[in-house]
Amino acid sequence: MRISIIGLGLIGGSMGLALRNWAKTEEGQSANLELVGFDAKGKQKALADKMGIFHRYTNTPMDAVKDADIIIVATPVMAVRDTFEDIQNHLKPGAIVTDTCSTKRQVMAWAKELLPTTVSFVGGHPMAGKTASLEEADANLFKGCTYCLMAPVGVKEEAIETIGRLVTIFGANPYFMDAAEHDSYTAAISHMPFLAAAGLVNLVGTSSGWREMSRLASSGFQDTTRLAGGGVAMHLDICRTNSDSIIGWIDRYQKQLSELRELIEQAGLFDERGRPKPESLSEPAGLEQYLKEAAETRERWQASRQQVQLDERSAGVEMPSNKELRSNYTRMLFGSLFTRRKPGQDDPNNPPGSNPSDRK
Amino acid sequence: MRISIIGLGLIGGSMGLALRNWAKTEEGQSANLELVGFDAKGKQKALADKMGIFHRYTNTPMDAVKDADIIIVATPVMAVRDTFEDIQNHLKPGAIVTDTCSTKRQVMAWAKELLPTTVSFVGGHPMAGKTASLEEADANLFKGCTYCLMAPVGVKEEAIETIGRLVTIFGANPYFMDAAEHDSYTAAISHMPFLAAAGLVNLVGTSSGWREMSRLASSGFQDTTRLAGGGVAMHLDICRTNSDSIIGWIDRYQKQLSELRELIEQAGLFDERGRPKPESLSEPAGLEQYLKEAAETRERWQASRQQVQLDERSAGVEMPSNKELRSNYTRMLFGSLFTRRKPGQDDPNNPPGSNPSDRK
Repeated sequence: MRISIIGLGLIGGSMGLALRNWAKTEEGQSANLELVGFDAKGKQKALADKMGIFHRYTNTPMDAVKDADIIIVATPVMAVRDTFEDIQNHLKPGAIVTDTCSTKRQVMAWAKELLPTTVSFVGGHPMAGKTASLEEADANLFKGCTYCLMAPVGVKEEAIETIGRLVTIFGANPYFMDAAEHDSYTAAISHMPFLAAAGLVNLVGTSSGWREMSRLASSGFQDTTRLAGGGVAMHLDICRTNSDSIIGWIDRYQKQLSELRELIEQAGLFDERGRPKPESLSEPAGLEQYLKEAAETRERWQASRQQVQLDERSAGVEMPSNKELRSNYTRMLFGSLFTRRKPGQDDPNNPPGSNPSDRK
Repeated sequence: MRISIIGLGLIGGSMGLALRNWAKTEEGQSANLELVGFDAKGKQKALADKMGIFHRYTNTPMDAVKDADIIIVATPVMAVRDTFEDIQNHLKPGAIVTDTCSTKRQVMAWAKELLPTTVSFVGGHPMAGKTASLEEADANLFKGCTYCLMAPVGVKEEAIETIGRLVTIFGANPYFMDAAEHDSYTAAISHMPFLAAAGLVNLVGTSSGWREMSRLASSGFQDTTRLAGGGVAMHLDICRTNSDSIIGWIDRYQKQLSELRELIEQAGLFDERGRPKPESLSEPAGLEQYLKEAAETRERWQASRQQVQLDERSAGVEMPSNKELRSNYTRMLFGSLFTRRKPGQDDPNNPPGSNPSDRK
């Protein structure tokens, strides 16, 4: 079995390492895995080679996908179109292609437009939440993370199950959703935090007092703006391929800030010109309620996140849907016991609408 | 020498611990320090007592300030007015009062209005960047942090120098500035990050997709929104006593977000309704520039912050202004060798405008 990874950054490299580990397991040995790597930059290939990740490296993406059973495209979003164009005439019939990009509608559209009907495409996005380089590749990067999967209408169930199994090999939890939903949700919980941070940095960085202010900025500023400190190329691609969702969330964020502004005006002991206002005219209840709501939502989320991480760490505890899927996938991956069970069927953890087979 | 601390939270407790350590030094022993603690909540006093922080505790703020040489008011901002009213007729002539609140104009106004002319007031604000409880009090909490000091026009230089020396005993770096400047700067680098985080949390928390989104939120969301997870009472007070500065910064932040929105619209591959736009009509250069500027500003700030922390840690390296001030304060604090040198005089590290004596 041949798995090829195109794009050897943190994600592609970490997947390679996870697959190398899996290859040593009983299941992996019987799969007789060959791992092939390609990156447009020779430097990346040399580094991956030094790290001993892949069995071999190719000089072109065309060579990389030749006879491959699974192809993982782990390039930046805006490079996916060219990659699909490069490989479209070199894919083995029956091959399964997936990607790892942060935005999905555009990638799904390119796949539909450019990949031949003889292959299957399932979109993927690991919520590993880290921007770093190949040097920091880690076989455990995806352990316990939610891994979004987008199955186009009509794609073979075998392809869905194979990619689902691949995700569990990475230690992640497959989470099927629709591409538009994905792009809207990630715009809110991932792209907006980045943009809010970049906006904050430029707000203070372009102000005349920045030289003095920067001395006062402390750990709160540091954490809130962390995302803005890097990953420009990646986020530029994200903004380009998810512009409409992001703009919708910016508009809603502006409304939140306007509401906050009004509540602060009501609660304040100063009027807008900085003139003192009698304390009796100040009404802090609305602002208090707003801040409390944020604190409680944040705390609940943090607690559930910690619970999930705890569950992942304790051996034997597994998400039920995952366990169900896993046993299925294991049988399926090597074609021995493939059943026509739909993923998520009779599964209370996959409510209607979260499963692509419901939409057919 | 008697130092009294009113308000036994993380800040008051940590200052007590730092002073207990200092009392064991040669200089501290000759000062014959007595540390007195008061908190309106008996629970806080009992906990401080269990932690062995203060020599004794009083039942009223009036008793706490009796015969005290230095009084540190470390209560929440909105409790300062009542505290000043309570203690105003019980202060020893010549006593020096300071505070630790996050906003300064209101506190300076209350001090001017309520404290007798027989005592000196110097406002203070340690940029320790942490909201936590007395349990986590730490003698080293202020080590290396910038400690803003606000000296009212006409205050005795002896008071300025005594409080400056106190700050160096905490291991912090005294930084003189004007109260309005302080409130504007901290609104930008401290209060805005908190409000941006609270706005982000309520943005997603009130959305219909939050249940599904929350599964996708990862470490980026976690760090960006950390501040919103607590400290509601403290931030409510901050917003009330700094409403006008904060509102000014919210308006400017909204402008940053509007600029970002426009740049994303230009760079996007979708129009506002989600319809694909030809790549040739997309112009990403402006957005790229915006994001690069944020990343570079953030990186420069981070590097300079790490440099400062490194400098603080390496023994023997000291901010020159600090060293200069320290030798002066040491002589001054016990009245033996008091000189009339102004703080920051001939000091290249205290440029004009950062020193209150320049404004007289």
